Amino acid sequence: MQDDIKILGIDPGFGRMGFGCVWVSGGHVTPLDFGVIITDTQDSHETRLLAIAQDLSALFLEHQPQLVAIEKLFFAQNSTTAMKVAEARGVALLVAAQCGIPVVEFTPAQVKKALTCDGKAGKAAMQRMVKDFLSLPTIPKPDDAADALAIAITATGKKW
Amino acid sequence: MQDDIKILGIDPGFGRMGFGCVWVSGGHVTPLDFGVIITDTQDSHETRLLAIAQDLSALFLEHQPQLVAIEKLFFAQNSTTAMKVAEARGVALLVAAQCGIPVVEFTPAQVKKALTCDGKAGKAAMQRMVKDFLSLPTIPKPDDAADALAIAITATGKKW
Repeated sequence: MQDDIKILGIDPGFGRMGFGCVWVSGGHVTPLDFGVIITDTQDSHETRLLAIAQDLSALFLEHQPQLVAIEKLFFAQNSTTAMKVAEARGVALLVAAQCGIPVVEFTPAQVKKALTCDGKAGKAAMQRMVKDFLSLPTIPKPDDAADALAIAITATGKKW
Repeated sequence: MQDDIKILGIDPGFGRMGFGCVWVSGGHVTPLDFGVIITDTQDSHETRLLAIAQDLSALFLEHQPQLVAIEKLFFAQNSTTAMKVAEARGVALLVAAQCGIPVVEFTPAQVKKALTCDGKAGKAAMQRMVKDFLSLPTIPKPDDAADALAIAITATGKKW
C-alpha cells in the first residue's frame, strides 16, 4: 500500500454522484469526507453536467487528492440512464485531467473482491466492510457515498 | 428558420468527434467549417477526454456559435465503445454549458428525417443531401464531419 496519499473515490452517477475521500498514512486509512453530488432534475441536461463539474472541482480543490479512483461502468442493457451516467463519468474524468490528478479505474467486481475477497459480494456485505475498514460508527450513507469509499479503499491496494 | 445564427453541429465520438459549423443568414445556410477532432490512442482515457474539451473550446472561441446541436446516442447493445462515446458526449455538453451556449439534441432518425424526409435514410443519401444543401462541390469528408453538418442543418429547422 502506497503511504501518505489522499485518494478520492467516485461512484459515477448523473442524478447522484457519490464521492469518498480517504487518507492513507502510517498503514492506516482514514476517511476524510464522503457524500453525494446531487443535480437538479429541473435543470437542463448540460446544466446538470456543469453542476457535477463545478462540485467535483470544488472537492478536488478542498481535498487536493493525489489520486482519483473511479468505477468502470457495466450495464446489463443499453438505456438512456446508462448513457447519462456515462456522460457524467466522462465529466468526472475530464475534471480530474484538468486538475492534473492521475486516475485509476476499477470494475465493480474488482471493488467487491478487494473489500470482501468475493467478486460477487452483495451490497450489504460491502457496506459493512467499508464501515469496519474505516472504523466508522455506522454504515456511511447514502449508498453512493459508501460505494465511493469502497472504490477509494480499493485504490489503496491494501489486501485484507 | 431562425435567421442570422451560427450553429455548430457535433457528431459525438471518442476517437473521432465530428464537427460542422454553419451560418444561417438571409434564408441561406452557409458552411463555415467542418472536420474532426481526433484523439491519440496512445494517450490515457482521461487525457483523450481533455483533448476533446480543449479542441471544442477552441472551436467555440473561434466560431462563437449561438447554438450547439448534438446527436443523441442509441446503441444496439451496451459496449465499452458505447460508454466511451457517451463519456465524450458528456464532455461536449459540459464545454457548451461552460461557454454558455444553448444545446439542442436530435435523434439519428430526426436528423435523417430533416434531411431526406425519411427517418430510415441511408448514409449515402444523407451525405448527398448535405452536399447539395450546402452547395458544396463534393461530399464533405470524413464521414463524421458530414454527419456533424447534417446535425447542424437539422437545427436550422428548415424544411425542404
